Amino acid sequence: MKYCSHCSNEVTLRIPEGDTLPRYVCLHCQLIHYQNPKMVVGCIPEWEDRILLCRRAIEPHRGKWTLPAGFMENNETLPQGAARETLEEANARVEILDLYAAYSLPHISQVYLLFRAKLLDLDFSPGIESLEVKLFEERDIPWNEIAFQVIRTSLERFLLERRTGAPVFHTGKIDRSPI
Amino acid sequence: MKYCSHCSNEVTLRIPEGDTLPRYVCLHCQLIHYQNPKMVVGCIPEWEDRILLCRRAIEPHRGKWTLPAGFMENNETLPQGAARETLEEANARVEILDLYAAYSLPHISQVYLLFRAKLLDLDFSPGIESLEVKLFEERDIPWNEIAFQVIRTSLERFLLERRTGAPVFHTGKIDRSPI
Ligand SMILES: [Zn+2]
Ligand SMILES: [Zn+2]
Repeated sequence: MKYCSHCSNEVTLRIPEGDTLPRYVCLHCQLIHYQNPKMVVGCIPEWEDRILLCRRAIEPHRGKWTLPAGFMENNETLPQGAARETLEEANARVEILDLYAAYSLPHISQVYLLFRAKLLDLDFSPGIESLEVKLFEERDIPWNEIAFQVIRTSLERFLLERRTGAPVFHTGKIDRSPI
Repeated sequence: MKYCSHCSNEVTLRIPEGDTLPRYVCLHCQLIHYQNPKMVVGCIPEWEDRILLCRRAIEPHRGKWTLPAGFMENNETLPQGAARETLEEANARVEILDLYAAYSLPHISQVYLLFRAKLLDLDFSPGIESLEVKLFEERDIPWNEIAFQVIRTSLERFLLERRTGAPVFHTGKIDRSPI
């Protein structure tokens, strides 16, 4: 950030009075430009035993597989965001169920919120951000071709818990780089 | 947003190619300025049966009571954010336990994430954003003086569940105005 989005003058990085962290402050119109983490909302769409994955058509990690997920938009709820991303990336309709995982990724200031979901029909296809969309049996999941560590971690845990009992909501932290 | 924070030229509201929503786009440097919901992180600090509440020194709802909570910062995890806000608003040290509630507030593009927490000592005092910080027995909670609907809803549910069994993580939506 170099300029004030409100008045176009240059901003200055300094700690505002009463604050503890440096912020981009506009000394002309006095606006403080806060920057905050973003939420990535998504789901684990199940059809019987199979899981729907998308192969990414965009960077980062073009060509790798991931769960449908993306940045939450203004004026939507968490489950609405997860369903919208699934529709956009996989042209797939899901019923969003319980929240399954909340992961903090402090090194990139993101929080992933992943829901369980029930795929409602088999009429899915790649959205504009996907090369391919496919249902995988657990044994066929391309573990060497998963796009993001947070997706790998939650999917591994989900499948283990599904095998040995019931998946249970949990929170966690991922601070490694992708893959 | 009126000006590009990267090059200071005027931005235009339009739907970028391949997108579905209008964004502030800079036609000079081509940057798209996405705007996303913010997370409010906080906790329900318990000391034996009592709950720690803060009386707000700032607007909105100056003078009303609330749980320690505030906007999550970049480069922190959800529990780190909840503990930081408790330290800032109540000068109180807590052990952050399980996530208790995730509420979407789509009308103001916020998501509240509230943890259970154990107050570690009785050495607390008002931070700069609080007029007063106090431990309340359930029967003494000032229900007519609670600052935000999302805090009232989660605190009511928490106390009911604590009385009748164990508080269980849940998600929800609040789309009414405060109080
Ligand atoms: Zn300005
Ligand atoms: Zn620009």
